Amino acid sequence: MLTIILAESELELMPESLRANPRIIESAGKRRKKPEEIILDSSTHHAVMGGLHEQERRGRPDIAHLFLLVSLESILNKQGKLRVIIHTRNDDMITINPETRMIKNYDRFLGLMGQLFQKNIVPDETQPLLQLKKNVTLSELLKELKSDFRIVCSATGTPVKLPQYFTELKKKKHNDIVCVIGGFPKGEFHSNISEIADEVISIYPEMVLAWTVAGEILVNYENVFL
Amino acid sequence: MLTIILAESELELMPESLRANPRIIESAGKRRKKPEEIILDSSTHHAVMGGLHEQERRGRPDIAHLFLLVSLESILNKQGKLRVIIHTRNDDMITINPETRMIKNYDRFLGLMGQLFQKNIVPDETQPLLQLKKNVTLSELLKELKSDFRIVCSATGTPVKLPQYFTELKKKKHNDIVCVIGGFPKGEFHSNISEIADEVISIYPEMVLAWTVAGEILVNYENVFL
Repeated sequence: MLTIILAESELELMPESLRANPRIIESAGKRRKKPEEIILDSSTHHAVMGGLHEQERRGRPDIAHLFLLVSLESILNKQGKLRVIIHTRNDDMITINPETRMIKNYDRFLGLMGQLFQKNIVPDETQPLLQLKKNVTLSELLKELKSDFRIVCSATGTPVKLPQYFTELKKKKHNDIVCVIGGFPKGEFHSNISEIADEVISIYPEMVLAWTVAGEILVNYENVFL
Repeated sequence: MLTIILAESELELMPESLRANPRIIESAGKRRKKPEEIILDSSTHHAVMGGLHEQERRGRPDIAHLFLLVSLESILNKQGKLRVIIHTRNDDMITINPETRMIKNYDRFLGLMGQLFQKNIVPDETQPLLQLKKNVTLSELLKELKSDFRIVCSATGTPVKLPQYFTELKKKKHNDIVCVIGGFPKGEFHSNISEIADEVISIYPEMVLAWTVAGEILVNYENVFL
């Protein structure tokens, strides 16, 4: 079993300091929503994000969307060997039913995420596909998950070749692996990753986007462990 | 070098038979476009697609978009070892400059594709990132490309494990490989794939989405050939 976590994902509701901004009220109105119900998205809200703390990395629900489309449609998930979790910059934890057919339309995905942050469960309790739990730090999440080995992927980690790396883990009988990928477009993890992981690895010397890292992890895990 | 082709992709301008439909005129108007300038997208035009030939597989620019995001952001592309081509159901051939940072926002991607079909080149001739050439069949395209070996991926092909399969090709000194992936959501290729390919392979017994197949091909090619 592989658990893949998109961590410190830049997925959040409109921050309070922006909700009274006329452009945000207008943008929300177009979706027939209140400002506090919509997801911050730098591709549409960029003009008003100036002054927001860490504005250069915030508002990237597109990264979470692509990560989910790559992970949930993977062969590993079709084989029932994958668990997918999103952790956000505000310590919200989103668990995803592996049978979820993730919405491909980006605007509808934003709508779904807005609903999830309001109701904590979507579509509803009889059929919970996505569930949100507040105030779970990455460290707490990793402690909660039962696993043999916890890896964090970071450009600053120890360089590895994944085929050999996973083969070694398999030899050591580490099958139940948790793999953490950053859900932000630039910069470093806020969490102390070397403290919470068994190992911090780097699969490429430069920053690689989250869904590319996910693809590398998923395919190589399949090759070695399936 | 790997050349990856999304073939018979369901990417096309609004078909003529739908252009006079009031809903399509309204939908185009919202984008300040004429019906003939917008891309058919089943997620928004589904209601009017009834009666369209092969309606159940048409209007899937989302597949091309995700395929491009996965391919262009891959480690193989960062290493300069990837060529990406889209071939469409109407035999349009789109070549993509490997340095293109593909638009992540889906609506803007649709806008860009609409422009490409009008102008045959975007953003412009001084900086051609995407270029379109009309009337190139998949068979002609494969003949034009210089390569050692042409593979088509299809659920009906010979089952293979990609790590071993690529290792064998490398032993036979086949380094310059063309790999064809279907760009449609269901059904079979229209082209006679067994005639145009050196080999038709299957990486999974069920239908797998194009960007998942692309990820499997890209990561395994990197592992063996980089």
